[in-house]
Amino acid sequence: MKVASKQTTEIDVRQYMQDVGQRARAAARVVSRAETAAKDLALTAMATEVERQAEALMAANRKDLEASKSQGLDAALLDRLELNAARIQAMADGLRQIVALPDPVGEITDLNYRPSGIQVGRMRVPLGVIGIIYESRPNVTADAAGLCLKSGNASILRGGSEAIHSNRAIAVCIQTGLKQAGLPQDAVQVVETADRAAVGELIRMKEYVDVIVPRGGKSLIERISAEATIPVIKHLHGVCHVYIDDKADMNKAVKVAFNAKTQRYGTCNTMETLLVARGVADKILPVLGKMYQDEGVELRGCEATRRILPGIESATEEDWHTEYLAPILSIRLVDNVNEAIDHIARYGSAHTDSIVTEDITRARRFLREVDSSSVMVNASTRFADGFEYGLGAEIGISTDKLHARGPVGLEGLTSVKYVVLGDGHIRT
Amino acid sequence: MKVASKQTTEIDVRQYMQDVGQRARAAARVVSRAETAAKDLALTAMATEVERQAEALMAANRKDLEASKSQGLDAALLDRLELNAARIQAMADGLRQIVALPDPVGEITDLNYRPSGIQVGRMRVPLGVIGIIYESRPNVTADAAGLCLKSGNASILRGGSEAIHSNRAIAVCIQTGLKQAGLPQDAVQVVETADRAAVGELIRMKEYVDVIVPRGGKSLIERISAEATIPVIKHLHGVCHVYIDDKADMNKAVKVAFNAKTQRYGTCNTMETLLVARGVADKILPVLGKMYQDEGVELRGCEATRRILPGIESATEEDWHTEYLAPILSIRLVDNVNEAIDHIARYGSAHTDSIVTEDITRARRFLREVDSSSVMVNASTRFADGFEYGLGAEIGISTDKLHARGPVGLEGLTSVKYVVLGDGHIRT
Repeated sequence: MKVASKQTTEIDVRQYMQDVGQRARAAARVVSRAETAAKDLALTAMATEVERQAEALMAANRKDLEASKSQGLDAALLDRLELNAARIQAMADGLRQIVALPDPVGEITDLNYRPSGIQVGRMRVPLGVIGIIYESRPNVTADAAGLCLKSGNASILRGGSEAIHSNRAIAVCIQTGLKQAGLPQDAVQVVETADRAAVGELIRMKEYVDVIVPRGGKSLIERISAEATIPVIKHLHGVCHVYIDDKADMNKAVKVAFNAKTQRYGTCNTMETLLVARGVADKILPVLGKMYQDEGVELRGCEATRRILPGIESATEEDWHTEYLAPILSIRLVDNVNEAIDHIARYGSAHTDSIVTEDITRARRFLREVDSSSVMVNASTRFADGFEYGLGAEIGISTDKLHARGPVGLEGLTSVKYVVLGDGHIRT
Repeated sequence: MKVASKQTTEIDVRQYMQDVGQRARAAARVVSRAETAAKDLALTAMATEVERQAEALMAANRKDLEASKSQGLDAALLDRLELNAARIQAMADGLRQIVALPDPVGEITDLNYRPSGIQVGRMRVPLGVIGIIYESRPNVTADAAGLCLKSGNASILRGGSEAIHSNRAIAVCIQTGLKQAGLPQDAVQVVETADRAAVGELIRMKEYVDVIVPRGGKSLIERISAEATIPVIKHLHGVCHVYIDDKADMNKAVKVAFNAKTQRYGTCNTMETLLVARGVADKILPVLGKMYQDEGVELRGCEATRRILPGIESATEEDWHTEYLAPILSIRLVDNVNEAIDHIARYGSAHTDSIVTEDITRARRFLREVDSSSVMVNASTRFADGFEYGLGAEIGISTDKLHARGPVGLEGLTSVKYVVLGDGHIRT
């Protein structure tokens, strides 16, 4: 791996990134045909090395933490940046979990004979070179490298400049793993310059990079999506809803609506707006309202909600659009499932929405008509997650419609091509 | 459907297109949940109406033909523009073929229980609103409308301005079909202004359009891809290869290589470069060379090829990159399958490539390592086609890697979302 100095000029950054891209493209051809055993050996060796180098990783991380503290970065960022013994172990465990996942590459499906006599099927293949752009969490370096490698892709990783020492130290472990398995060192490249121009290059190197996966806050992802000329697997934001139908089981409704909001506040699959059928609002809202308030959740409601919960603030038009990522919940009464679906179509972010009902017809309608990446019946929105879905790991949650939608695991880092087998067949 | 006059100003075009977009978005929600029977009824009624209105379609088409002739447009374009009785019948038959295809919308796959107790599966859903931009062939209006409707999408169709009368007349048939089935008229909208600014609007209306499918020449597609802010399903070009291995059956090799070049010259899946293993070049090239020359195919070769076929021109570096779409073929000798794969990686367009060999190890390597949308063994590249693959119909062939790759049929016009079924399940 080439190390560029921090004092690079803009021209140097371009050359450096072009060089990284060329190496990635060449390595991608090798890893695309690598055997599963070699990829798994590399991942296992990386995990072992991460454990062995725990002290060195923490020492490198301390440099980043000190620099960030001296720059006055906030406590939340420092927390995300920190690598402690537990987090290092989690990183190694994560790599071993990827070893346990089936290799998606080369799987052939739907291989059928056609009337012409040829056999036509579809083969799952890597995308090629994946650029990952992320913020302060250094563990993404190992996670993303592992997922890209297992799916047969080369990766170019660009973490936050505040984590550069941590990321370099993790990169050393990754390189050791690749070497032990006889795989090319360039299969995983960590961008070694803190120069922000490197990101601008990465998202425009069409010749060398097939897809960009940004991981971070909404502003990072919006900026990258706006500027990239390479396809981006986007994970914008989650304005998730739970709709309590008037045919809901009230115990389930209370459980689901409480869990969806309070199990964690800062995650994209947390409920931000609760929709309640008018027919059951009088019964359920006083119970739920008290539970939320006891938990410290600020409630904001439509006028009808405020007649039932008179102490709460009024929700504005903006509230219905807002991903709070905080202990705040907006509540709206709706006439029925139709109005709930309309509200979600208008204000939702196509992330995750759930209905609570015992009525199978309404459940079926909600499942079919709500146009979100995850649509649920009688389950907490918090389940929208690669591990919970059995993908084993996720590189992000896509709120796009094309290619990958919802949690993106190994399959989302692959594509399918057609394979045709004949015996000298020609078209007539 | 709203008809804008041709004298619209730029502001009017923007307002007109925004209006078209809004109507499409509203109609998309209705067609996304339409029952299969209603969609099939509409398609059948469209087919009947196309047949009933054959005279009116030809009359409208004559206006377009006359205008194009008076503008001096070339014979190839006039041929593509012409609607005769056979082509009108083919249009009606095409709509009925779409009726016969299974409805992809709502299919649930991989529905499994997870350790948490929830069931997780994937449901196939429409993309939403599809913008189709095409050139002179009016039959695309019916084909594209039919495929988009069956896959539960609303469509906005923007044909070539030279075909505007023909397209309007076809639109009338489509509207009749939608009406008879009780589906919204706005589910298929034909852009009624010849103003080119309409395309510029269409490819940037992110709020209303989910994907753009351009159908036409490379320059149209490149222009749209460069300017669109909406995802584009691209079909750029086909620099397709046949590689004759030294373990090929010579009869199969001759058949496949001859068919791949000569069955049709102007199609994207036509072979443009023939790669031949040195070990068999002396034997096969004189036979094939004579066949091509008897057929009027101009040959251009590498130096080694020219030692075997001394009369032919020398191929330049540019030849290896060129999609001739004409009776011209470039020929290169290679050492073995590795060199063939390298040549394809360097010069190919990731469209369709075929190996002729009896050696299963080399066949498996070629299938896995050639990174093209269709990879073949002992079959003519001309098979790369939605009908031949059993998709029933195609809206294009994608040379992209993300989302759809290869021939794009109904499935390529859909996406999958996750569905989660619980019984009051919460995350702990």
